[in-house]
Amino acid sequence: MSKVIKNGTIVTADLTYKADVKIEGGVIVEIGPDLQGDETLDATGCYVMPGGIDPHVHLEMPFMGTYSADDFESGTRAGLAGGTTMVVDFCLPAPDQSLLEALQMWDNKSTRANCDYSFHMAITGWNERIFDEMKTVVQDKGINTFKHFMAYKGSLMVNDDEMFASFSRCAELGALPMVHAENGDVVAAMTAKLLAEGNNGPEGHAYSRPPEVEGEATNRAIMLADMAGVPLYVVHTSCEQSHEAIRRARQKGMRVYGEPLIQHLTLDESEYFSKDWDHAARRVMSPPFRNKQHQDSLWAGLQSGSLSCVATDHCAFTTEQKRFGVGNFAQIPNGTGGLEDRLPMLWTYGVATGRLTMNEFVAVTSTNIAKILNIYPKKGAILVGADADLVVWDPKRSKTISASNQQSAIDYNVFEGKEVTGLPRFTLSRGVVTIEESTIKTQEGHGQFVKREPFQAVNKALSTWKELVSPRKVERTGIPASGV
Amino acid sequence: MSKVIKNGTIVTADLTYKADVKIEGGVIVEIGPDLQGDETLDATGCYVMPGGIDPHVHLEMPFMGTYSADDFESGTRAGLAGGTTMVVDFCLPAPDQSLLEALQMWDNKSTRANCDYSFHMAITGWNERIFDEMKTVVQDKGINTFKHFMAYKGSLMVNDDEMFASFSRCAELGALPMVHAENGDVVAAMTAKLLAEGNNGPEGHAYSRPPEVEGEATNRAIMLADMAGVPLYVVHTSCEQSHEAIRRARQKGMRVYGEPLIQHLTLDESEYFSKDWDHAARRVMSPPFRNKQHQDSLWAGLQSGSLSCVATDHCAFTTEQKRFGVGNFAQIPNGTGGLEDRLPMLWTYGVATGRLTMNEFVAVTSTNIAKILNIYPKKGAILVGADADLVVWDPKRSKTISASNQQSAIDYNVFEGKEVTGLPRFTLSRGVVTIEESTIKTQEGHGQFVKREPFQAVNKALSTWKELVSPRKVERTGIPASGV
Amino acid sequence: MSKVIKNGTIVTADLTYKADVKIEGGVIVEIGPDLQGDETLDATGCYVMPGGIDPHVHLEMPFMGTYSADDFESGTRAGLAGGTTMVVDFCLPAPDQSLLEALQMWDNKSTRANCDYSFHMAITGWNERIFDEMKTVVQDKGINTFKHFMAYKGSLMVNDDEMFASFSRCAELGALPMVHAENGDVVAAMTAKLLAEGNNGPEGHAYSRPPEVEGEATNRAIMLADMAGVPLYVVHTSCEQSHEAIRRARQKGMRVYGEPLIQHLTLDESEYFSKDWDHAARRVMSPPFRNKQHQDSLWAGLQSGSLSCVATDHCAFTTEQKRFGVGNFAQIPNGTGGLEDRLPMLWTYGVATGRLTMNEFVAVTSTNIAKILNIYPKKGAILVGADADLVVWDPKRSKTISASNQQSAIDYNVFEGKEVTGLPRFTLSRGVVTIEESTIKTQEGHGQFVKREPFQAVNKALSTWKELVSPRKVERTGIPASGV
Amino acid sequence: MSKVIKNGTIVTADLTYKADVKIEGGVIVEIGPDLQGDETLDATGCYVMPGGIDPHVHLEMPFMGTYSADDFESGTRAGLAGGTTMVVDFCLPAPDQSLLEALQMWDNKSTRANCDYSFHMAITGWNERIFDEMKTVVQDKGINTFKHFMAYKGSLMVNDDEMFASFSRCAELGALPMVHAENGDVVAAMTAKLLAEGNNGPEGHAYSRPPEVEGEATNRAIMLADMAGVPLYVVHTSCEQSHEAIRRARQKGMRVYGEPLIQHLTLDESEYFSKDWDHAARRVMSPPFRNKQHQDSLWAGLQSGSLSCVATDHCAFTTEQKRFGVGNFAQIPNGTGGLEDRLPMLWTYGVATGRLTMNEFVAVTSTNIAKILNIYPKKGAILVGADADLVVWDPKRSKTISASNQQSAIDYNVFEGKEVTGLPRFTLSRGVVTIEESTIKTQEGHGQFVKREPFQAVNKALSTWKELVSPRKVERTGIPASGV
Repeated sequence: MSKVIKNGTIVTADLTYKADVKIEGGVIVEIGPDLQGDETLDATGCYVMPGGIDPHVHLEMPFMGTYSADDFESGTRAGLAGGTTMVVDFCLPAPDQSLLEALQMWDNKSTRANCDYSFHMAITGWNERIFDEMKTVVQDKGINTFKHFMAYKGSLMVNDDEMFASFSRCAELGALPMVHAENGDVVAAMTAKLLAEGNNGPEGHAYSRPPEVEGEATNRAIMLADMAGVPLYVVHTSCEQSHEAIRRARQKGMRVYGEPLIQHLTLDESEYFSKDWDHAARRVMSPPFRNKQHQDSLWAGLQSGSLSCVATDHCAFTTEQKRFGVGNFAQIPNGTGGLEDRLPMLWTYGVATGRLTMNEFVAVTSTNIAKILNIYPKKGAILVGADADLVVWDPKRSKTISASNQQSAIDYNVFEGKEVTGLPRFTLSRGVVTIEESTIKTQEGHGQFVKREPFQAVNKALSTWKELVSPRKVERTGIPASGV
Repeated sequence: MSKVIKNGTIVTADLTYKADVKIEGGVIVEIGPDLQGDETLDATGCYVMPGGIDPHVHLEMPFMGTYSADDFESGTRAGLAGGTTMVVDFCLPAPDQSLLEALQMWDNKSTRANCDYSFHMAITGWNERIFDEMKTVVQDKGINTFKHFMAYKGSLMVNDDEMFASFSRCAELGALPMVHAENGDVVAAMTAKLLAEGNNGPEGHAYSRPPEVEGEATNRAIMLADMAGVPLYVVHTSCEQSHEAIRRARQKGMRVYGEPLIQHLTLDESEYFSKDWDHAARRVMSPPFRNKQHQDSLWAGLQSGSLSCVATDHCAFTTEQKRFGVGNFAQIPNGTGGLEDRLPMLWTYGVATGRLTMNEFVAVTSTNIAKILNIYPKKGAILVGADADLVVWDPKRSKTISASNQQSAIDYNVFEGKEVTGLPRFTLSRGVVTIEESTIKTQEGHGQFVKREPFQAVNKALSTWKELVSPRKVERTGIPASGV
Repeated sequence: MSKVIKNGTIVTADLTYKADVKIEGGVIVEIGPDLQGDETLDATGCYVMPGGIDPHVHLEMPFMGTYSADDFESGTRAGLAGGTTMVVDFCLPAPDQSLLEALQMWDNKSTRANCDYSFHMAITGWNERIFDEMKTVVQDKGINTFKHFMAYKGSLMVNDDEMFASFSRCAELGALPMVHAENGDVVAAMTAKLLAEGNNGPEGHAYSRPPEVEGEATNRAIMLADMAGVPLYVVHTSCEQSHEAIRRARQKGMRVYGEPLIQHLTLDESEYFSKDWDHAARRVMSPPFRNKQHQDSLWAGLQSGSLSCVATDHCAFTTEQKRFGVGNFAQIPNGTGGLEDRLPMLWTYGVATGRLTMNEFVAVTSTNIAKILNIYPKKGAILVGADADLVVWDPKRSKTISASNQQSAIDYNVFEGKEVTGLPRFTLSRGVVTIEESTIKTQEGHGQFVKREPFQAVNKALSTWKELVSPRKVERTGIPASGV
Repeated sequence: MSKVIKNGTIVTADLTYKADVKIEGGVIVEIGPDLQGDETLDATGCYVMPGGIDPHVHLEMPFMGTYSADDFESGTRAGLAGGTTMVVDFCLPAPDQSLLEALQMWDNKSTRANCDYSFHMAITGWNERIFDEMKTVVQDKGINTFKHFMAYKGSLMVNDDEMFASFSRCAELGALPMVHAENGDVVAAMTAKLLAEGNNGPEGHAYSRPPEVEGEATNRAIMLADMAGVPLYVVHTSCEQSHEAIRRARQKGMRVYGEPLIQHLTLDESEYFSKDWDHAARRVMSPPFRNKQHQDSLWAGLQSGSLSCVATDHCAFTTEQKRFGVGNFAQIPNGTGGLEDRLPMLWTYGVATGRLTMNEFVAVTSTNIAKILNIYPKKGAILVGADADLVVWDPKRSKTISASNQQSAIDYNVFEGKEVTGLPRFTLSRGVVTIEESTIKTQEGHGQFVKREPFQAVNKALSTWKELVSPRKVERTGIPASGV
């Protein structure tokens, strides 16, 4: 059974041209004019683009004995509805848990996924078992990224020597370390201080983690990676301070990637000052939303290439769950949605305004991260042989974002009321039509785990360079006897 | 007649994979395993890459009643010998000459080219005819780039209001302005001062145009382009000051490209302090070579993307021509060679050291400039339908660079004595083998002019953005009567 | 006749201590406890500070056949009322006028001054007479500063080679060049474009000279000064772009000073969007007011020392004069008031908020500029032997700024309605009480011209350094014969 | 008994003028022409300057059961010989020791001092006793500075939450936190790695703590101070990375001071590559010497004011003590000399070259730190009432620095062989002539402890500002019931 997407304009990270796309067996088998197949999808007036890849989601994340509301089924369904065809979730071991054991738990949850997915492995502690298991994770389990939390003191947070040890291990294994960059010590101290002063509302969350606190941690992680000789990926870069640290590193030739979220690009801190507690609490995530100057910085980063990809950190907690934090903002579960809205929001605020070209849109929503994760061109490309993870994008379709008609399981939407123009006509996962305009055709369990090889080209190049400039011992004769 | 490049590894700006490449009629017709054709080129152990594009050459350039030594025949032959399959020369009208008349002269010279080529049009004065002819140049002649000299006071130099007018015209036409960025007033004044002090040797050339002078002009051109609402391309970015201005602009979202030369990446200012006058004079070019800190800056720019492509400014003057400047460095014709050496030098000092990945090498030698010039993927790509401008790169072949065995017509080589590893096994121009290891098979006149369309995607996006944020008149009632 | 200021706290740029100040013959003769004199001024609860020096005013400035409204009498009276005891005006020769002839005109106007004053000499053209007269101006006339306009194309503006020549002349004479930094070519072109589009209201003035245009010119002037080997003073630094250029220069060791105006520190661009044409037009000055991010930048510059002193550019045009520009913003005379309000506004928004210490307040309103102008400690100090230009500052006195009760001759005040706390109890000019709270006791013609010596310490140090690192000729033998 | 310094030129941080200085009772009692006293010191041809203050010395520092070689007697004698009239040492409690108990030990050692001195208190651990004792240290003991080590893991190092707690305590007490900024975790890991690889020579010390490691820690400390609302003093700023962090903070209005050492200004990393083990080991200090680009950065910092004062970190270990580290660089005691050479070296390389004016020389060797430590104008000034800590500086006297004729107790000198021009003719400590050219007249025990008050003006201003912008609670009604 073959399928042909006809009459569309193909838009990739570096090309825009009219051609049909033929799909068989879940992969693209031909690109060209006037193709024929068993089934035809009409792309007249549309752009045919690589499906979005969201490198930063938390589905069915364990939290205080319960779970975040979107699981692998509803979460990936929401993603597909918005043109995203692959997600990468975080496997989060307890600090003393076996990485492999945790991975088994995540494997179990992901069986219901509607689209392809992969995992980042979190390093939440440090010991010899973790050191050893990292090799297995990379070489046997197909995971080449390790996440480190510099915040969440007392639970997920690792300190500098643990991070440095893990980064060094990543360098050996050809893996890519990632960081959640906020200074956890300061966040904890500020939180205690604010609560002690009676500042217990959701705005206290923002007060407790200002941009300088994120910038510092980003800067620190960059130094650690540089000393360990490994590239670095900074998740949810939300502010100029963090972005500046990334730019400063890059202008020295360091290999650092930054990932702004669609929320930070389009929403600002004024949300936390809402008189409606629920409104404010629903926007609580880390890092918090920033002001418009920070937004401008992030957009410019996407334009200039100092920031690499746009994610969501989708972690959907219901209003009921958010209310755990009434009277104490530190108890408000951190996270918002976004999987369904990332592409339409970025198109509307990025492409339609002229901030980004269409090609840049594809780059930052799909292709760049596919390259960083070393799964390009299986994902992120429209090439013969690539997976047919595609979105047929109708630049004229529009809607008003609303929780009332979304796929996500949560009862609100942080983009509620935003008008977007540019929506999927079709979303295909490995050739299967999962979305046709407003009609959901997803198949639970269709999604597969995507293995990722280590030693991406940049890792290899960096290792070569670091070896070339490594410390050289001075050869001496006549060294005096030791004074001890 | 078909040709197949077999057993190689294809390396493009974003992919590395094993496949054969089949060529017919000068274009790539198939990419895949086990291809067959009438003729086979063995690429075993080699990388098959898009041929280099040198966006900055001056062939048979008129100079004081004579010409630079390499014409379109020897120059393109030198390029092909080093894996470069396309060059872009500068059409240089006299300040009051018709652009179209000058273009006719360049068309005449280029008929002997061994590989494809295009032209940038220089704007060396400003009047209504130039304004009008720019449209013809863009729409009829297939030239979408206009070069502006901020130096060479009294000959090529244009001042700020001329540049701003031309940049604004470029914005309307969807063209890309380029600048040679050095403050011509200061260079002229410094030159006079140095000569008056008896500082007349070749090192005086470097003294007369220090990095701050280049940085200033770059910064100024960027502001002019920003105000005109058009992207900008800065040729021969040689120093941190200029690079910093580019980075600073990019981090505000401005669309600015920088082009380091292979000379500035690998040679330094100490060359001018040679006791051998000829040695020093042969290295005289503008901007001059800089110190190693500037080199590090340029390499980091290629790594981070703040600089876009590597060129040569190939403008070959013989030792005899250089000696016009004995006793007065200002009379030394500006220019060095490099066309033949750009790729081997960049591979050796960039890829082999780990500073660049192979994909980045292709990006900065070919693909990026093809995109900027809006000729991608006809050039700069290995895709079905693309021109078969290819280099089969043998990473094990090595040589010592020497004037004694080069293709260029000049009697020296600024890279004399450098050992390079990584050289073409074959270079193909639209499917024709022009180089096979040391054997030259070029065909004079084979090269064709490459037309380039205006309104590259970035131009269009920028115009959209500038319109969105353009000044809005405040509507007022009750405006008082004028005081005049 | 001696006078003693008793019971106050002396605040200087580096000291805060309780002491009385005794004055005789216009100078401070003793500082210490329990001093006695013929007359006593009670400073209980007050700070005794060096009177303010405003280095940037235009009094009775010629304009289209008329003059700015405040002359040397009303202008200096307004200054004294606000604690400012010295002003520096700009002598503005026509481009082809003799500097000395113009100076004679300024000397004539200044005879009515109520407080001491000096002049900056403007260089508005370039020729041999100007070159020669600069020496006379410095050595005979006691003027060590030369102002250059990079804007006002067609009238005051000088171009790069004129500026470079003048800066070089300043270096020889030990004088300090100053610049009004805006790119005049771009301003002219933007003005024409805006008017052509019908954007003729006062907001068009702001649109015609955005921050990038000022930043560019600042950057260019800095390079010119660096190449000429002379320090540089940038007047009315209004924005981050200009401040960034200054910081960047300073962090390379260049000797560059920036001068924010009190208007730019406390008022923003929203003023131009007033629906009231008069309101907007009264705020028209160059550079225009900027947004709050620029304000933050300027404050930080005062805190960190990257900006040196706060001025006003006081140039008072009446509403009637402003209305010359109805229908064409380019005809609105540029200038606002501020002489009377500079100190109270800076105290209220700077010291009371904690942005500045009291000592920093004195530094940026008086002492720093006295050092830069080489008149310290005659002015800007509370030391025995210094001129008794003093303000007895009552930190509790407050008022609401209003045109209705100001000394300035204009019919409005750009700070109208601002509440300030911190006002003079007494202002003394060379020992004479000119202001006692709301009572004006100024003496027309009391003011004297202050001569200023060249070769300030920084000029001398910079010349030493530039000589040390100046170009050295390479000595060569066997230089070939010239090719010509 | 009165003394008069006659015929000299007084040079202070902001003035240069001819006057005599009269001294009685250890303080300056008169400044003016033609003064008479019981004793006359001839300053003909000399500059009379405030004596140097070295804010960073370690005398008789405990180390592995022994002590650094210079104690308070020889150390202060060396200082006086070079024009330094006050030193500030570091009281170093063991991590669990009482601050007051440690202070008693330091008090005991300092009784032999030849000149005045003070102490910084180190915070090397954190607990309630330390929290409480900090108040006593500030309010009773006259110490307003607290030092924190971010390096020396396992001994002196404190971590982020300890530092943040201490910084917050400093904010309350009006004290100034200081940091030794190097990432101790990384230094420890790098040291282990280098030793494991056999890189055990003195150059390994430099390899183990590159500039990025210092820059990171500086950046982190700045963020902590900003969040705590307190100024920060960064000791021994050795590199551009650290300086950049300081500049970046200052350009946001943060109150951060940097202190380069005379060693880092004038010596570079090539010293560690000496084939002579002793030569290299004698230069081992933290941070290590850097390359010339870093030196340029530090000089520019002194010129622009982004760095505040020049110190020595004088900690003199003999060659014998250095040899504890043969076979293991980590065992080489960290420290070099410099007390005697700071002023002559800075004059020769700073003032004589034109990098600094004489006034700036006084500022960075004496006045700035006196202000920062809140002891100005008792120290650091030439004013009536100030301590007569003076140096009569002969700009013509010269010598070649050599261990063979130095006052310091160590057997080498890191500046060995440097020619300096500019040396003391007399050095006075509170009016007592301690040095007369080469003749030593110091009086053991003459030195006194200098008490320092908290709440320097900058601390107060910063607290006001931080209060003004502190988090404000959003008042809400209708908050939902908690979800828990």
